[in-house]
Amino acid sequence: MVQALALEKAVQCINKPPVLLTPGPLTTALQVRQAALTDWGSWDSDFNRVTSQVRSALLRAAGVNHADQMACVPLQGSGTFAVEAAVRTFVPTGDGLVIGVNGAYGERLARLARMAGRRVRVVEHPWNQPISAERLADAMSDRHGFSNVGIVHCETSTGLLNDLGQIADTVGAAGGKLIVDAMSTFGALDVFPTHPAVRAVVAASGKCLEGLPGVGFVICNEQALTAAKGQCDSLSLDLADQYTYMQRTGQWRFTPPTHLVAALAAALVEYEQAGGRASRLARYRANSAALAHAAAGIGLVNYLPKALQAPIIHTFFAPNGPNWSFERFYNLVKQQGFILYPGKLTAEETFRVGCIGQVTPHTMRQAVRAIYQALTAMGIDPLHHLGDAL
Amino acid sequence: MVQALALEKAVQCINKPPVLLTPGPLTTALQVRQAALTDWGSWDSDFNRVTSQVRSALLRAAGVNHADQMACVPLQGSGTFAVEAAVRTFVPTGDGLVIGVNGAYGERLARLARMAGRRVRVVEHPWNQPISAERLADAMSDRHGFSNVGIVHCETSTGLLNDLGQIADTVGAAGGKLIVDAMSTFGALDVFPTHPAVRAVVAASGKCLEGLPGVGFVICNEQALTAAKGQCDSLSLDLADQYTYMQRTGQWRFTPPTHLVAALAAALVEYEQAGGRASRLARYRANSAALAHAAAGIGLVNYLPKALQAPIIHTFFAPNGPNWSFERFYNLVKQQGFILYPGKLTAEETFRVGCIGQVTPHTMRQAVRAIYQALTAMGIDPLHHLGDAL
Repeated sequence: MVQALALEKAVQCINKPPVLLTPGPLTTALQVRQAALTDWGSWDSDFNRVTSQVRSALLRAAGVNHADQMACVPLQGSGTFAVEAAVRTFVPTGDGLVIGVNGAYGERLARLARMAGRRVRVVEHPWNQPISAERLADAMSDRHGFSNVGIVHCETSTGLLNDLGQIADTVGAAGGKLIVDAMSTFGALDVFPTHPAVRAVVAASGKCLEGLPGVGFVICNEQALTAAKGQCDSLSLDLADQYTYMQRTGQWRFTPPTHLVAALAAALVEYEQAGGRASRLARYRANSAALAHAAAGIGLVNYLPKALQAPIIHTFFAPNGPNWSFERFYNLVKQQGFILYPGKLTAEETFRVGCIGQVTPHTMRQAVRAIYQALTAMGIDPLHHLGDAL
Repeated sequence: MVQALALEKAVQCINKPPVLLTPGPLTTALQVRQAALTDWGSWDSDFNRVTSQVRSALLRAAGVNHADQMACVPLQGSGTFAVEAAVRTFVPTGDGLVIGVNGAYGERLARLARMAGRRVRVVEHPWNQPISAERLADAMSDRHGFSNVGIVHCETSTGLLNDLGQIADTVGAAGGKLIVDAMSTFGALDVFPTHPAVRAVVAASGKCLEGLPGVGFVICNEQALTAAKGQCDSLSLDLADQYTYMQRTGQWRFTPPTHLVAALAAALVEYEQAGGRASRLARYRANSAALAHAAAGIGLVNYLPKALQAPIIHTFFAPNGPNWSFERFYNLVKQQGFILYPGKLTAEETFRVGCIGQVTPHTMRQAVRAIYQALTAMGIDPLHHLGDAL
């Protein structure tokens, strides 16, 4: 009973939650979370209709439709599960995979492909430089089955946006096929799903679509998916099997996260009513610009040059000096109502601020004010200390 | 805009949802769903506390604690993902796996192990007979690395309860180790997690714990898990890696379904406050008895003999005759507020009625009344027609 009460207390820290300025889970709209209040039968036709509407709306969000012969395959689990599913479904076990890496998510892609027994050739880049389409093509050229290429569209570890269109053109010219981790761009930026060199675009519910986290999905050409049937070496992660079953029955193969699917449906309603991708991108660009402007105003320095910065998440150098402690800084900002994200660089001390979710330019300016007050409370003048850091 | 409105309409069929009499998703408590209304930062210490409390409460629900050197590893995705994770983590790629099959979930276990490249030896049983511990041991005896054994505790495809205690004793005496799919029994029945022959017990959030679906978990010996490090051939499904990372950071490796984890925490509070496993089993037994009694009263015949019936889900023979249509029957019962489940037998026409979730013996009697009225509306007198079916 004492244990039950301790657990209850942990559950109850719920009043007035802080604003999440992270790469997801995000601050979502109340109507999205309220859509998770209903229990649905996973076999029932009402729920099948929700699944079907979500799949159609995801194709529309990708800018395609059934007439383009494109398929949407939702999958239970986090986005990484869907990325691994795409690799296991589209890259046969004997084949090789060239992976462009300029951040932690590219490294993760290489790691999961290797653990899946695929032959992996990594093309490494500094984390503050975009992936070179030519270097990918070069790595393909002396191929032994290395016609598959994997990249991350926006590297959430830094906020860097890779040039997907150019990479697709170059990889396509070299005869390759791309698997794109578009986790943090899908819904806001063009992810080129019908480009002839793009085999699969992978994303998830809890990022720019502003649903609740826990549903991944893959957008791909239907014929390519059908051709990949029988290739996957994991039952749970078999996209072709999931697709075939869904097309035949309208249902998921294994118990779906019904509440999250319903919440994603609500998020997609809001997305389309607000104007779809163009409108979402405009809002995120405004957030990103407000953040960059306010942060520069208090002396914070962006890790990336403006040309490489996606309007998704910013990495800032932490102030130099003995007074800096990320943990203390994080808690001081949190006390003012904002949850930031730690940096992911190994060499430099950084922190990250996301600009996606149900937030506005006003939120971003308030967050920077909270950052400034936290630094001041720590005895740090960013205008002074950041000058030293660079 | 028209499409957005159509989607909105699908989302809105929410008022007064029917009672779910299925093997999960279930009808859950309102406070469980309300716990999903908060957005949590997945990196934040408040959410880490929720994760930690959930893991401790899951160990308590298993009847064990940290002092028993037992570990709880939650995993994103449906229960099947967690079963595949247990196979890939605990059975090395070269090894063999004996699988006792007496239903669809046993078949699925065999299929996922085969797709994962493990050598599988299936011990098939009729679906209305329990798994024979001796036959499992025999299949192990001429072993070539066939010391691993997999079974499903309660076969949800029929409602049959396998004798886990006896199987564990016999498999253990033959030098084997068991992976137990306890999806539909965990939280209500004893799953023998500390039995020396039990290597892993796998279950999920949306069954007898009455949380929302979308979180699987594995209970296992901590030393065995540590010893299995490096064995898994899937990054997403690597339980040892998930565990090591969680122990070190308090966080999930990849984005967790934060809202579902918070809902599971609330479900576990309710579970413990209501008296834990003994009390949950007593309620389900009362539901099962009320269902069996009322169903017999209108002439419905249970597929299983009473001794093999778990108090989880019942399979009934469908009435014989030209008027029977499962689809029509299902919809007539649904109109009266109850969602049933289709049968999963291939040879016999059946349907299933679950007795888990936030339901009572009164609910079960009302459901049987709805079944009777549906049959009557279809021109079927079960007392007459079921006699013919047997």
